[in-house]
Amino acid sequence: MTQTPEAQEINLRIPGPTPVPAAVLQAMARPMIDHRGPEFAAILARVTDGLKYFFQTSADILCFPAAGSGAMEAAVVNLFSPGDPVAAVTIGAFGNRFAKIAETFGASVTRIEFPWGQAANTQTVLERLADIAGLRGILLTHNETSTGVTNNVQALASAIRAQYPDVLIAVDAVSSLSCIDLRMDEWDLDVVFTGSQKGWMVPPGLAMIAVSPRAWKANQQARLPRMYWDFAWAKRSLDKGQTPYTPPVSIFFGLDASLEMMRAEGREAIFARHQAIGELTRRRARELGLELLADPAFASNTVTAIKIPQGIEVKALRKALREQDHVVIAGGQEQLEGKIVRVGHLGYVHQPEINAAMDALERQLVALGYQLPSPARQR
Amino acid sequence: MTQTPEAQEINLRIPGPTPVPAAVLQAMARPMIDHRGPEFAAILARVTDGLKYFFQTSADILCFPAAGSGAMEAAVVNLFSPGDPVAAVTIGAFGNRFAKIAETFGASVTRIEFPWGQAANTQTVLERLADIAGLRGILLTHNETSTGVTNNVQALASAIRAQYPDVLIAVDAVSSLSCIDLRMDEWDLDVVFTGSQKGWMVPPGLAMIAVSPRAWKANQQARLPRMYWDFAWAKRSLDKGQTPYTPPVSIFFGLDASLEMMRAEGREAIFARHQAIGELTRRRARELGLELLADPAFASNTVTAIKIPQGIEVKALRKALREQDHVVIAGGQEQLEGKIVRVGHLGYVHQPEINAAMDALERQLVALGYQLPSPARQR
Repeated sequence: MTQTPEAQEINLRIPGPTPVPAAVLQAMARPMIDHRGPEFAAILARVTDGLKYFFQTSADILCFPAAGSGAMEAAVVNLFSPGDPVAAVTIGAFGNRFAKIAETFGASVTRIEFPWGQAANTQTVLERLADIAGLRGILLTHNETSTGVTNNVQALASAIRAQYPDVLIAVDAVSSLSCIDLRMDEWDLDVVFTGSQKGWMVPPGLAMIAVSPRAWKANQQARLPRMYWDFAWAKRSLDKGQTPYTPPVSIFFGLDASLEMMRAEGREAIFARHQAIGELTRRRARELGLELLADPAFASNTVTAIKIPQGIEVKALRKALREQDHVVIAGGQEQLEGKIVRVGHLGYVHQPEINAAMDALERQLVALGYQLPSPARQR
Repeated sequence: MTQTPEAQEINLRIPGPTPVPAAVLQAMARPMIDHRGPEFAAILARVTDGLKYFFQTSADILCFPAAGSGAMEAAVVNLFSPGDPVAAVTIGAFGNRFAKIAETFGASVTRIEFPWGQAANTQTVLERLADIAGLRGILLTHNETSTGVTNNVQALASAIRAQYPDVLIAVDAVSSLSCIDLRMDEWDLDVVFTGSQKGWMVPPGLAMIAVSPRAWKANQQARLPRMYWDFAWAKRSLDKGQTPYTPPVSIFFGLDASLEMMRAEGREAIFARHQAIGELTRRRARELGLELLADPAFASNTVTAIKIPQGIEVKALRKALREQDHVVIAGGQEQLEGKIVRVGHLGYVHQPEINAAMDALERQLVALGYQLPSPARQR
């Protein structure tokens, strides 16, 4: 068996999977039920309703047994046809993945890239869009998990919509939704998706995707092949209180329980908690004399990317934190591997876990020869 | 919260999701861990090893966060290119789904259909295959969940392979693997897939797919677009002890625990238990004077489809069983809706649950006006 005492004490500070509250774990330990029966239909309806509150939408929300990358693929194949001109605004690894999926499936993709650590600049985006004939869709990242940067989707979408009233705006909100304000209807977004293992305090395995009326219209014309991800099939099933194929029942049990907790706390209170936690994390990092990767104006309240000074091996640092302090943080991806660490602070997170993680980071940095700045050394 | 006392007592007799042992539910209630860390790598290696034992293969096995239908799509997009001549041997709803996915993605599909309740006839299949120029692949169902029929995949594959040495044989073993003998290597199959919520005694959310060397070779040439389902990406990650995107961690915890239980029981003992349970279910149904849908020579040991006599409303019967007896059975799909019920007996199942379910079925049939045959009436 895999149960270890250590596992119980881990301070899991990666940007997903995130810690799951005991009440949610307990809800998930329920015996299986019939996924075509009345009880599951009631859970599906309740969960969908709770999701709408956090997506701030009256649009349809569809749930797929999948990781967040599956939701990216679903957005692409449900909106577009081969050759459709699509702009992919990318500020990091997950923006690149979204772009690559659209390319793989045959859209004509223009990548609008920004340096890792920066947010997308609205003016630059508009200038680049002007070069694209017959623009059909735009792929945006709300919160880029690889860099700890949150785009101003409201400003981007508003500027884009003013010039392209019919363009399809698809937003990767995997690591932001429910933690950082995102108003699907007010900002006039078309497809918005997230994953259960991020802000929702539930294990991974479920992707949730909202589909605007404009996206539904596009879906009828979109000719990319699809079956598993087909929005129309999912919607026909949802209207009967079902899913097209077997749903991840235990994840639904968990999400049902976590949404109840989250609604009790309230949307705005959760946003405020994440803002406070984000600020705390950044302050603690700066006090250690460490530089943050993200442009301060766009620093994410769900994940913080911290530059690690040359001479300190990130792999050794993470290993020491994991083995000695039971603090688990993420490394950098692709071009940032070995250069940064990432501290996740989304979902079920409060000040003590962040302080414990940053205390441990301080200790291990010092153990690896890092010189603290004077004020921090006096702590 | 959704916990109800009733849920604890349900006799869940649908062909998946299947009941989950308490030890597995408990294993799943563990806190989350880092899916990129050493502990998850160890679980992934252990689970893969356990799966190989039940697939009876030394081929690679890849795990995707998905339902069984996702594995169907993965098989199609990883093996074929647009226009590839593919034969889909279908004996029911899930065979049709497999065929439809191949059609949707642009293969040139010849459907070889058999009446629902019958198994595929090897001679007929060979005759139909002879009409297909440049045959590239064959889609087979091992156990057809909609009709309770188990194809003789060994005979089919052997006859096909003798005439088509290079053809790709893809087998849907979603509701049979680990319960009914299937020897991937010995029978020379190329892609074989299953789902966590069937014989594996784990909640839904994970699809497991084995890929033969012949399938890997085909994969390099296959041009259907793929990203989420890409075997090559999954394999590159697996070699590093990871998955391409966030895996359903809690399902892995459960599968790790269930595989330990299953290996302790042993492959052959599990097959024998399912055979005995299958025979018991069929005997009990016949004793009630009910007709079985499946050709007796190919009756499934994981699910039994029972014809319901005219005049008895299946919906009312299932509702009474659910509400009064806490026995949950499935109805018929598509053309069989209202005509049959299906009793699932796979995974964590023993005689008492089947006897309780069949006792309840007898009581409710009588309550709905059904006349039992004389011997059964004396029970």
